[in-house]
Amino acid sequence: MRFPVRIADFACLDLARQGRTGIPEVVLAEGKRPAHLQRIVGTMLSKTGRAIVTRASPGAIRSLARLPGRHREYPAAGVMVLTMPSFCLPARRGTVGILCAGTSDFKVAEEARIIAEQLGCRTVRAYDVGVAGVHRLFEALGRMRRQNVDVYIAVAGREGALPTLLAGMVDRPVIGVPVSTGYGMAGKGRSALYAMLQSCSPLAVVNIDAGFVAGAVAAQIARITPGQARGGAGRKGRC
Amino acid sequence: MRFPVRIADFACLDLARQGRTGIPEVVLAEGKRPAHLQRIVGTMLSKTGRAIVTRASPGAIRSLARLPGRHREYPAAGVMVLTMPSFCLPARRGTVGILCAGTSDFKVAEEARIIAEQLGCRTVRAYDVGVAGVHRLFEALGRMRRQNVDVYIAVAGREGALPTLLAGMVDRPVIGVPVSTGYGMAGKGRSALYAMLQSCSPLAVVNIDAGFVAGAVAAQIARITPGQARGGAGRKGRC
Amino acid sequence: MRFPVRIADFACLDLARQGRTGIPEVVLAEGKRPAHLQRIVGTMLSKTGRAIVTRASPGAIRSLARLPGRHREYPAAGVMVLTMPSFCLPARRGTVGILCAGTSDFKVAEEARIIAEQLGCRTVRAYDVGVAGVHRLFEALGRMRRQNVDVYIAVAGREGALPTLLAGMVDRPVIGVPVSTGYGMAGKGRSALYAMLQSCSPLAVVNIDAGFVAGAVAAQIARITPGQARGGAGRKGRC
Amino acid sequence: MRFPVRIADFACLDLARQGRTGIPEVVLAEGKRPAHLQRIVGTMLSKTGRAIVTRASPGAIRSLARLPGRHREYPAAGVMVLTMPSFCLPARRGTVGILCAGTSDFKVAEEARIIAEQLGCRTVRAYDVGVAGVHRLFEALGRMRRQNVDVYIAVAGREGALPTLLAGMVDRPVIGVPVSTGYGMAGKGRSALYAMLQSCSPLAVVNIDAGFVAGAVAAQIARITPGQARGGAGRKGRC
Amino acid sequence: MRFPVRIADFACLDLARQGRTGIPEVVLAEGKRPAHLQRIVGTMLSKTGRAIVTRASPGAIRSLARLPGRHREYPAAGVMVLTMPSFCLPARRGTVGILCAGTSDFKVAEEARIIAEQLGCRTVRAYDVGVAGVHRLFEALGRMRRQNVDVYIAVAGREGALPTLLAGMVDRPVIGVPVSTGYGMAGKGRSALYAMLQSCSPLAVVNIDAGFVAGAVAAQIARITPGQARGGAGRKGRC
Amino acid sequence: MRFPVRIADFACLDLARQGRTGIPEVVLAEGKRPAHLQRIVGTMLSKTGRAIVTRASPGAIRSLARLPGRHREYPAAGVMVLTMPSFCLPARRGTVGILCAGTSDFKVAEEARIIAEQLGCRTVRAYDVGVAGVHRLFEALGRMRRQNVDVYIAVAGREGALPTLLAGMVDRPVIGVPVSTGYGMAGKGRSALYAMLQSCSPLAVVNIDAGFVAGAVAAQIARITPGQARGGAGRKGRC
Amino acid sequence: MRFPVRIADFACLDLARQGRTGIPEVVLAEGKRPAHLQRIVGTMLSKTGRAIVTRASPGAIRSLARLPGRHREYPAAGVMVLTMPSFCLPARRGTVGILCAGTSDFKVAEEARIIAEQLGCRTVRAYDVGVAGVHRLFEALGRMRRQNVDVYIAVAGREGALPTLLAGMVDRPVIGVPVSTGYGMAGKGRSALYAMLQSCSPLAVVNIDAGFVAGAVAAQIARITPGQARGGAGRKGRC
Amino acid sequence: MRFPVRIADFACLDLARQGRTGIPEVVLAEGKRPAHLQRIVGTMLSKTGRAIVTRASPGAIRSLARLPGRHREYPAAGVMVLTMPSFCLPARRGTVGILCAGTSDFKVAEEARIIAEQLGCRTVRAYDVGVAGVHRLFEALGRMRRQNVDVYIAVAGREGALPTLLAGMVDRPVIGVPVSTGYGMAGKGRSALYAMLQSCSPLAVVNIDAGFVAGAVAAQIARITPGQARGGAGRKGRC
Repeated sequence: MRFPVRIADFACLDLARQGRTGIPEVVLAEGKRPAHLQRIVGTMLSKTGRAIVTRASPGAIRSLARLPGRHREYPAAGVMVLTMPSFCLPARRGTVGILCAGTSDFKVAEEARIIAEQLGCRTVRAYDVGVAGVHRLFEALGRMRRQNVDVYIAVAGREGALPTLLAGMVDRPVIGVPVSTGYGMAGKGRSALYAMLQSCSPLAVVNIDAGFVAGAVAAQIARITPGQARGGAGRKGRC
Repeated sequence: MRFPVRIADFACLDLARQGRTGIPEVVLAEGKRPAHLQRIVGTMLSKTGRAIVTRASPGAIRSLARLPGRHREYPAAGVMVLTMPSFCLPARRGTVGILCAGTSDFKVAEEARIIAEQLGCRTVRAYDVGVAGVHRLFEALGRMRRQNVDVYIAVAGREGALPTLLAGMVDRPVIGVPVSTGYGMAGKGRSALYAMLQSCSPLAVVNIDAGFVAGAVAAQIARITPGQARGGAGRKGRC
Repeated sequence: MRFPVRIADFACLDLARQGRTGIPEVVLAEGKRPAHLQRIVGTMLSKTGRAIVTRASPGAIRSLARLPGRHREYPAAGVMVLTMPSFCLPARRGTVGILCAGTSDFKVAEEARIIAEQLGCRTVRAYDVGVAGVHRLFEALGRMRRQNVDVYIAVAGREGALPTLLAGMVDRPVIGVPVSTGYGMAGKGRSALYAMLQSCSPLAVVNIDAGFVAGAVAAQIARITPGQARGGAGRKGRC
Repeated sequence: MRFPVRIADFACLDLARQGRTGIPEVVLAEGKRPAHLQRIVGTMLSKTGRAIVTRASPGAIRSLARLPGRHREYPAAGVMVLTMPSFCLPARRGTVGILCAGTSDFKVAEEARIIAEQLGCRTVRAYDVGVAGVHRLFEALGRMRRQNVDVYIAVAGREGALPTLLAGMVDRPVIGVPVSTGYGMAGKGRSALYAMLQSCSPLAVVNIDAGFVAGAVAAQIARITPGQARGGAGRKGRC
Repeated sequence: MRFPVRIADFACLDLARQGRTGIPEVVLAEGKRPAHLQRIVGTMLSKTGRAIVTRASPGAIRSLARLPGRHREYPAAGVMVLTMPSFCLPARRGTVGILCAGTSDFKVAEEARIIAEQLGCRTVRAYDVGVAGVHRLFEALGRMRRQNVDVYIAVAGREGALPTLLAGMVDRPVIGVPVSTGYGMAGKGRSALYAMLQSCSPLAVVNIDAGFVAGAVAAQIARITPGQARGGAGRKGRC
Repeated sequence: MRFPVRIADFACLDLARQGRTGIPEVVLAEGKRPAHLQRIVGTMLSKTGRAIVTRASPGAIRSLARLPGRHREYPAAGVMVLTMPSFCLPARRGTVGILCAGTSDFKVAEEARIIAEQLGCRTVRAYDVGVAGVHRLFEALGRMRRQNVDVYIAVAGREGALPTLLAGMVDRPVIGVPVSTGYGMAGKGRSALYAMLQSCSPLAVVNIDAGFVAGAVAAQIARITPGQARGGAGRKGRC
Repeated sequence: MRFPVRIADFACLDLARQGRTGIPEVVLAEGKRPAHLQRIVGTMLSKTGRAIVTRASPGAIRSLARLPGRHREYPAAGVMVLTMPSFCLPARRGTVGILCAGTSDFKVAEEARIIAEQLGCRTVRAYDVGVAGVHRLFEALGRMRRQNVDVYIAVAGREGALPTLLAGMVDRPVIGVPVSTGYGMAGKGRSALYAMLQSCSPLAVVNIDAGFVAGAVAAQIARITPGQARGGAGRKGRC
Repeated sequence: MRFPVRIADFACLDLARQGRTGIPEVVLAEGKRPAHLQRIVGTMLSKTGRAIVTRASPGAIRSLARLPGRHREYPAAGVMVLTMPSFCLPARRGTVGILCAGTSDFKVAEEARIIAEQLGCRTVRAYDVGVAGVHRLFEALGRMRRQNVDVYIAVAGREGALPTLLAGMVDRPVIGVPVSTGYGMAGKGRSALYAMLQSCSPLAVVNIDAGFVAGAVAAQIARITPGQARGGAGRKGRC
């Protein structure tokens, strides 16, 4: 089951990825032909018990409706998770705090949240707390600290200042996620990306709109216990 | 004296500009041949009693040493001001607050300050108050408000978040000035410029390193008295 | 009423912004989900008596039709203003002159005009006065000077030369607004933006198509009375 | 000692940053005037017992020679660390693995290593293991796994493929650092940066040449113990 | 028949191209008006016995349905090949190996494959063997080597690392083809293109999505026999 | 009739432009609201006897159907010309040669041709004569020389080499017009524009797709008679 | 003498270019090795009686000092012209008007002027007449019209508005030349280039700093006599 | 001898590369510290009998003077080749034709030539045959065809049209090499690169100035004998 699984002439599933990296192969729906998408998701589901689909349009979600198992649809996040009855979520370990600057960042923030939870983390949210009214951030931070957040994901478009401000206030890693909002010069998230790369507070950054990457990296960070043996985790999962 | 004054075949001084716009023709030293620079500055000085030179290298400043009048040199700002004894500064009207995010922004902030003062404004400064340690900004703002600042100039490189944060806290216009610091992607001030253009708080912006433009526009703003007659100002100047 | 008001998990209204900065939180319709938009606008309206919506498509305007209060729709400007009977516009203070270079700049110019008026300014307009036929500008300027304009907004696409020419002729601040017209190289407003940043006449600039920002900054400038006490304004508003 | 410390009119040290974020204010030498640099480093040293200087040219390092304390100079990394006798390094906690693709990446990789060590981590290195001869990477990875690396820093210029390949093989977070090598199209590190942002393996990224940021974020990650009380660490430091 | 053939006022077919370069004029459907497309393809077919159409939308393919001859449609590759009964494919000479990194690269890889076959080469395929699970590549390479591949085409989007890795392992020329997948910064294939240009293994590159160019160049390479007389080939073709 | 004519609040026609520059104000349909377009074209027609509309979609052309006069529609060029019976075309003076590299350049070449003819020039055409089959160009040039072409317009997309090659062979001015064809890197005409700006044969260039500009400039050039009195031309026009 | 002349293994002079195009091969000094430059210029001089060298640094000019003939050096324009006694300048035909916006544009304007004169035109100059003080332009235009200028060259950096304004006022072709002045965003002439390409008045454009191209194209234009026989010109030249 | 050879902590030589790919590891001097460079080149020389160094400044070449063996220095190409007496060049197989457009392309063309020869090919050259005088190209092509060129390298800066024109005339693969000449917009080789990627004749492309890559890929192509057994070549080499 762990060797690459070939599907016709167009795909070659890397089922061993979860074992190697702790992150399963996730299916990016965008840019795939519908027939390809169904075959890939169906095979993933039958071989591993779960298929996570991201950047899925409503049409893509509908096209997967006939596949077996339990379907969780998050259209506002462009995400769909399919699981077989036999699948158990890993035990929750580590806490990821997710903040976003405005309501337009909702989609990307939610994508990051769902991924982090699917990879076995607790999550805490504070949305629409951007720097134009900076007092909203202070309130949110107090709550996050009380919940022992291990790593922060800060999602922002426009000028992208939220992650910088946040990273100047907390002693946990901050992952900045630029969002493709904003019109005009350097719009579509480029301004936010550049600002995060140039941040005067140390920050890790992912690509524009890359909620999945942020969630996956945050999960890898949140579950670290320095020096512990690999593979570890005695806690039980949720089935 | 107010018609364009031609110098040989290479220059045509617009001496009427101060009268038309309230801002005199200022000499940009960068990119001018030394012989041209001396002739232009000398003519400006003799015709109007003052010459302001910006983006002047140490060499350019030295090359103007033999011109007559009083010489004020600001090498750390790349600025030189020459005045004849007969010249009177306009009476101070309006107050400009100048903030910068880091010590690398010093040069541009000082250029803006000198211009604003030469155009007849009071100035108040708070330097190195960037958002990585945001409490520094709060302290500075209290001081500026007490001094009745009419317009703010916020100078920042890197991620350029300072003007956005500031504009979310004050009820006076904020002019953002990006600075060409920062290495790597979108360095040399582009990241800061983009962030200011995309700011989620309303902001007026000038070009990268354009301390002169910020100072000039701030002076035009600070001296406005809505609805008053043009040319006005009964207050006396300083000679 | 002045604390941030949270709406479900997606929004956190900054109702104190008007008090802090003189500019209320304005709702950017573009990029918001319809359900989010209705909740945000409805809450803003009920809490502050007015909601201003910008960059609103005809569909977005229709989706707000069932909200209470008086609805002013400006589809050619992408703007909608909703007010409760109890709401009083602030007393008019200061005058904003708005010029645009061509008929394609109409939308952005109108957005700036409506914002400036909602923020309490008088406005004067001269549209389609671009530099290809520069005599049109001279005529318009005479009229604007007679009406004691305090600050100019110059809207232009293509080569964006209008604000530069204007700023060389007037002694009041000029805000340049690039417009996303123009095809080919550096089209979509970038050429105009660059030209305004590089202008040889001092100019304040806002992002491409940012009529709202121009209107808001102009209102902040036009209402300044140097050195007066904060909060001021004894004049009565219009209800 | 923990309030911002003002130096003349140009600097305002944020000495509380280490307490708030676990990362002290580090002095970026590049772009600072020599007189400013000396005053800032001297003050930092006297107030906190240590000053870390990055992106320091040989000239900048020389200009700090007269300051007191112990001087560790790393000219090949552009780094200098000054410590007073009273200063104790924090106890080592967590292990950072640092790989680079070619010999031209040496400088940035070393900057990251020194920062990670100054922030209290163990480090393991494997340099010049790029993908043109991919077997070199496999050998290095075996060694790193045996040393229980908690987080990887992968430094690469040119096409920047090393972090992607690495992240497909390990179950710990990988931080990609693009390096400004490479001539021609998208040279100076942009190609490598883009490749890391577009990586098909989840990856956290920092700006081009930002060895400091990578080292700081890696240290924050490596020292996490999920859910433990803040401030913790009973282990003794090294003085 | 070999002189340029003019069609009305809009086209001038270069029928001698096959003789001069070994590659016939291929019709790029994209951007042509339907009436122009039909006339051009029909003339090509009647004059040379074959017409190859690339970047053809389903609508473009339908619009050619009434032309005579045998129609081979490859909608997943955007390609259509029309042949008259008299047309004989050249004898197969040389073998082209085609690899792609993900299922989203299918279309471009198939375009390259069809062109290489139409120009007289054998092809071998291995799709979805990208570097996130690098063991898939090793397996595919063994198979390709056993089939005596003369030249490789490596198709990849996102970070575009596949051609670099491949070129470090084989002793035959590798042509990298970037694909316009990937969202966010440097998406739409630019990141992959840059990575291939900056590759630390020697690589020939073609434009983004240029499957046709890759197939044509590969065919020119695969059919080379150093020093042989021009025009050569005694082997018989397939009619 | 020659003063600017104001239309409501949105337009200000510059009817004197023809007299000043020899080129009438031409109406760019793209980006104008339909109601604005009709009013502008109708006014232009009634005041000057002719209205030339460019970059007009089929919808825009239809929306002008009810205006009076004779309508010439060129949908393949995006152009429409409306004339009143009283209008006389200027007498033909000077000859413009128009070449394009491929059939995809047809639209822009035709726009240039119609404009040049409306401004009073003869035109000669040679389309689809690009450099991939360079012999086609040689044949066309012979024909053009025999017709005494005064100025050449060379239209090309993709790599844009045609104008360079042409300018190395003729002793008349060449105007290069880049066309927004071409996919992938530097597509949409940017590659062609850059190539024309960097041409190793002297070349005048206009913006991408700017057939109107090329036609207008060519007409100004073709009608020059050095040193003749202004306004000239005794030849009779066509009514 | 008119066949290509090969020099060692590095050069192949195209001496027939003057005959074919009316413009001789001009030697671009920049980027050539000194030994190559001397050989090329010396050969050009001996074969055609004249060598024109552009973009020549002072060092390059010095390196040509030992060549025979008369040397005209224009270091402020980066130009050098060498002629043998036997060489006769063509008779002056046509007049080129050259304007520039500021003193920093002097070098490029002078390069254009010298080329136009070497190619047989009269020239008229008006320098430093940019749009910040637009009345200077009106005065200059009157003078140029009185001298029957056939074609205008308008040189400008920064926002590059001068050619647009000019082209709206004259009935002769205008060639815009962007200059690489201007700091910050879109500096180094890009802003000016974009503005000229986007100009709302029809304009021909050349590359940034391309004084040579502007001069050569202007000469081709100025010497046109529509419909006259080729080769013509009975006027006598100056030797 | 074929395992990676580690040098101190900074390098790991991939000596097996020649065996795997037919192309040895070549040392890029640029960006390496002098001490690193000497150690790497010395080790390469002693382990494999030859070291090829590219992009070597005169200083870099001097710094290698004390290494043993025979030194061939090509300063005009930035290349140095060191060989031990025991080293035998492979037998010449295949012929590479190298053309360049202008004398400024000499350096890159020579780098390609030396690499192709070091990898065992014959070479034929034709330099300065650019398209501004296209007849020079026709003459050169005849000569190349007579010498049975297997693959062409076409080197060009500026508008980069040479490879396109060439590929439309020959039936062998063409590799385009853009060169970083050219000032102004899209200078430094970008224009040439884009033109080659957009070429309307099929073309393989390498990075700007990448003479090494072109030479290496050409050698791989030129030595192909379709379907022959790997490793082959019975011809004797030159020692």
